[in-house]
Amino acid sequence: MYYPEPLARLIDSFSRLPGIGPKTAGRLAFHVLRMKEEDVIDFAKALVNVKRNLHYCSVCCNITDTDPCRICQDKTRDGSVICVIQEPKDLVAMERTKEFNGYYHVLHGAISPMEGIGPDELRIPDLLRRLSDEKVQELILATNPNIEGEATAMYLSRLVRPFGLKVTRIAHGLPVGGDLEYADEVTLTKALEGRREL
Amino acid sequence: MYYPEPLARLIDSFSRLPGIGPKTAGRLAFHVLRMKEEDVIDFAKALVNVKRNLHYCSVCCNITDTDPCRICQDKTRDGSVICVIQEPKDLVAMERTKEFNGYYHVLHGAISPMEGIGPDELRIPDLLRRLSDEKVQELILATNPNIEGEATAMYLSRLVRPFGLKVTRIAHGLPVGGDLEYADEVTLTKALEGRREL
Repeated sequence: MYYPEPLARLIDSFSRLPGIGPKTAGRLAFHVLRMKEEDVIDFAKALVNVKRNLHYCSVCCNITDTDPCRICQDKTRDGSVICVIQEPKDLVAMERTKEFNGYYHVLHGAISPMEGIGPDELRIPDLLRRLSDEKVQELILATNPNIEGEATAMYLSRLVRPFGLKVTRIAHGLPVGGDLEYADEVTLTKALEGRREL
Repeated sequence: MYYPEPLARLIDSFSRLPGIGPKTAGRLAFHVLRMKEEDVIDFAKALVNVKRNLHYCSVCCNITDTDPCRICQDKTRDGSVICVIQEPKDLVAMERTKEFNGYYHVLHGAISPMEGIGPDELRIPDLLRRLSDEKVQELILATNPNIEGEATAMYLSRLVRPFGLKVTRIAHGLPVGGDLEYADEVTLTKALEGRREL
């Protein structure tokens, strides 16, 4: 070990993060050395605060520092629609569109036999509990457009059938700004299947 | 802002690091959420410790948690050679070779008019002070093989001429394991110039 011990420890901490190898970890640690002390302290506080002050919303299971979360507290939203997503990040992506004004439900994953994730690992019981509220009329399944997401959407659509709700799935098709030439066959097939009259 | 505030802060802290954009910062922050609390606390401590417990060695200007640093304290090393390098990272690279047994001097940069770094920004006075020690007989200039590193080596070699030392520059040539076909012309020229009899 050629690095002084405090530096070696920080490099080790950085290199435990996903996608950060030992070289990048070294570069980041050296950057921290050159940072202002107050910024480093803010960084350290932010790390611990994320762990200590965030938990899951008791309604939608999103991560939040209030309970219920700000979205579930917002009474101006449309209570008739719940959009089911896999991860808190997906919620942020949806909110960015500014097109959806209902509530969310975060599953925290998708069914994946390969990774040993079954329906029991997801926040499905919390979802079912919310569906017994008579206000809810539509469930939008916005899980990812991949095998796991599709399997989860399929599973959920069958599971909630007794509730007699409208269950919809977000559309598949070509990404806007994309190029037909570079679209893979499956996406193109889905785009064709989902074509609409203009 | 769709993220709860503690998370947004951590994302902000991560995205200030070099080479980490907002998407990666988000991914890292979500990873921290899933980490064990004690690991997060260790990470936070490591950050602050690096800033608080590391300083520059009063002899070689390397970063260290002891003073003088462990290498400068090591009396078994060869006091007749000082190897001048740009960054603490370069020292680690040199030590990894296990071929060098002298002492080091870390300049903390290289002369770069483009970035406004002149000789005054480097740890050159500390180096000159060490050269007045009669034991020192050779100065190895191991700055980087690029414009800034070459300029710094050139500058130093002239500056230390009055000391009457042997001043050497590390060799340029083809990297071991490399391929002649992919070597750039300048490296190949240097490799030819530096050819040795076998």
